[in-house]
Amino acid sequence: MGQLTREQIKINKVKTSKIDSIDFNNLAFGQVFSDHMLTCDYIDGKWQLPQIEPFAPISLMPSAKIFHYGQSIFEGMKAYKDSNNDIFLFRPLDNVKRLNISAKRLAIPEIPEDYFMEGLKALLNIEKDWIPTKEGSSLYIRPFTFATGEGFHASPADNYKFIIACAPSGSYFAGKVKVLIEEKYSRSANGGVGFAKAGGNYAGQFYPTQLAKDKGYQQVIWTDDTTHEYIEEAGAMNVFVRINDTLLTSPVSDRILDGVTRKSILELAKAEGIKTEVRKIKVSELVEAAKNGSLKEIFGAGTAAVISPISGFGFRDQDFDLPEIKDTFGEKLKNKIVAIQTNKTEDPFGWRIKV
Amino acid sequence: MGQLTREQIKINKVKTSKIDSIDFNNLAFGQVFSDHMLTCDYIDGKWQLPQIEPFAPISLMPSAKIFHYGQSIFEGMKAYKDSNNDIFLFRPLDNVKRLNISAKRLAIPEIPEDYFMEGLKALLNIEKDWIPTKEGSSLYIRPFTFATGEGFHASPADNYKFIIACAPSGSYFAGKVKVLIEEKYSRSANGGVGFAKAGGNYAGQFYPTQLAKDKGYQQVIWTDDTTHEYIEEAGAMNVFVRINDTLLTSPVSDRILDGVTRKSILELAKAEGIKTEVRKIKVSELVEAAKNGSLKEIFGAGTAAVISPISGFGFRDQDFDLPEIKDTFGEKLKNKIVAIQTNKTEDPFGWRIKV
Repeated sequence: MGQLTREQIKINKVKTSKIDSIDFNNLAFGQVFSDHMLTCDYIDGKWQLPQIEPFAPISLMPSAKIFHYGQSIFEGMKAYKDSNNDIFLFRPLDNVKRLNISAKRLAIPEIPEDYFMEGLKALLNIEKDWIPTKEGSSLYIRPFTFATGEGFHASPADNYKFIIACAPSGSYFAGKVKVLIEEKYSRSANGGVGFAKAGGNYAGQFYPTQLAKDKGYQQVIWTDDTTHEYIEEAGAMNVFVRINDTLLTSPVSDRILDGVTRKSILELAKAEGIKTEVRKIKVSELVEAAKNGSLKEIFGAGTAAVISPISGFGFRDQDFDLPEIKDTFGEKLKNKIVAIQTNKTEDPFGWRIKV
Repeated sequence: MGQLTREQIKINKVKTSKIDSIDFNNLAFGQVFSDHMLTCDYIDGKWQLPQIEPFAPISLMPSAKIFHYGQSIFEGMKAYKDSNNDIFLFRPLDNVKRLNISAKRLAIPEIPEDYFMEGLKALLNIEKDWIPTKEGSSLYIRPFTFATGEGFHASPADNYKFIIACAPSGSYFAGKVKVLIEEKYSRSANGGVGFAKAGGNYAGQFYPTQLAKDKGYQQVIWTDDTTHEYIEEAGAMNVFVRINDTLLTSPVSDRILDGVTRKSILELAKAEGIKTEVRKIKVSELVEAAKNGSLKEIFGAGTAAVISPISGFGFRDQDFDLPEIKDTFGEKLKNKIVAIQTNKTEDPFGWRIKV
């Protein structure tokens, strides 16, 4: 089987674009969607050719397994446009690889890399005008696969649908983020699916996060489900901690997502001469560091939020505010990474891909 | 707000029933679906009136959160018909309660009990002819709720859909069931959603179950994710173990589903004078009992399979076959419970509800 060519992608364009109804200066995150989407069906044991069609409702039997057994995985990516109107992606092959790692764990067929990449590039060329250029904005890209095959039997579906949809988006978080270190509820099990971007990993976080919000926090920092002694990740973000001048983050595991932003930050920090350590971080160490003043920063890292500074954390009914310091690692690294993503600086790492 | 009355349920019947195309003597489990379904939408912060409509495709935006964040829960029930054409349900209020326990944990709005029960009864009256009467068959009922609200933001949806669909079904398992005791992969975390019937709990089991199937087993028995020393449940079933003349099962927890069949078996066994113990069961105890001959039976218990005898188990590359004994607890309890369900005997427990 040869590589998929652009000509094999059937394109059905909308009659009238809805782009003029969108206020690109006031974009929320992931709330408005572009005109078209890429779709690809897994039928008869193979992925059919991808096609581009209007972003519109899809029709599913109520017995489709997505409704019953949570067989769904997704990715998050962003597209940027520079002043020459050139389109860029950031480490897209890492997203394809991770989607397929998630697929394997959720018993979903893997998508061929060329179907994903050629499909995405064709889609972005059509949706070019949907890529915002305002600072802090981008076209958020959501590739996802879910079970369309039917049956009330807890077993993998026979049919699936892969879609790439796009949402011109502003910032993920508005304002300061305070986090609660969670000791009762857990995000993932040893030997579970926490490392995968599986739909079910997110739904399970909503209720504990709501309880945290009711107490005045915006996010939860999850701890390991066995001892609750170690911080793991923030659900939609990996977590970085700066103690004195060392930047720490937890190692990835079967419970922690291997974030693209996370690993980019580690490489960037090293290149910038920032000392990094990838090791397990005890909650008690964090509390101790907050008390003795050696805790300088905490920030979340993920595609949606890029780097999101955390202003303080709660632990067992006690609040710990972080100092307001200048020249934070978080800001420095965020500026670097965004400059690379948006083609405003050299990319010595080879992360940026021109579409 | 008063109770929902039958007259408030709008009914839109199919023009032509497909019932004549169904071979009721050769029913698989959950593969064919009846003519109608109950639907109920959560919009503008409240559940709208339920309605009955043809079982047909539903239309959803690709940005509906069910596709991305796994916000879905379900129940499993069965309807039976006796020789007088009367319809019976088994402990249905327990399913309503459990659906709403699942709903809370998954940040899904709870369904009013009368919407569920009146809706289900109205549906069953219309689908009466779809209830199989052949021994071992029943009308499997699938109530489920999922997120229809849109957005690429990991937060609870604003809109939901509740559906009750029906599938005339034969046995869940065909033939003997051999299980593998799993020590690497896990089903649920401490503080997770394992006690809920959440979609994501099932998708995560498919891959490890496939690995077990490749080795010749039909199901996995999950162990606790911290030590893998204790057996928990079989994913779609709770697990019972008979050692000498004592029937054991694990206590329910935040990792183990509070099965309706499980608790019915415990009550029935007590009434039958069978000694029961609800306590944690070590894998090593199971292996020891298999070796010294005191392990007499293992069976799974759940609505779909009722009681499913297990013929042997694998543990660390060793296989342990169970003895073939007469007058098993499993068979005795299954006969009792099915006789109650199908109105063939007295129901001293008050479990059977006439529709």
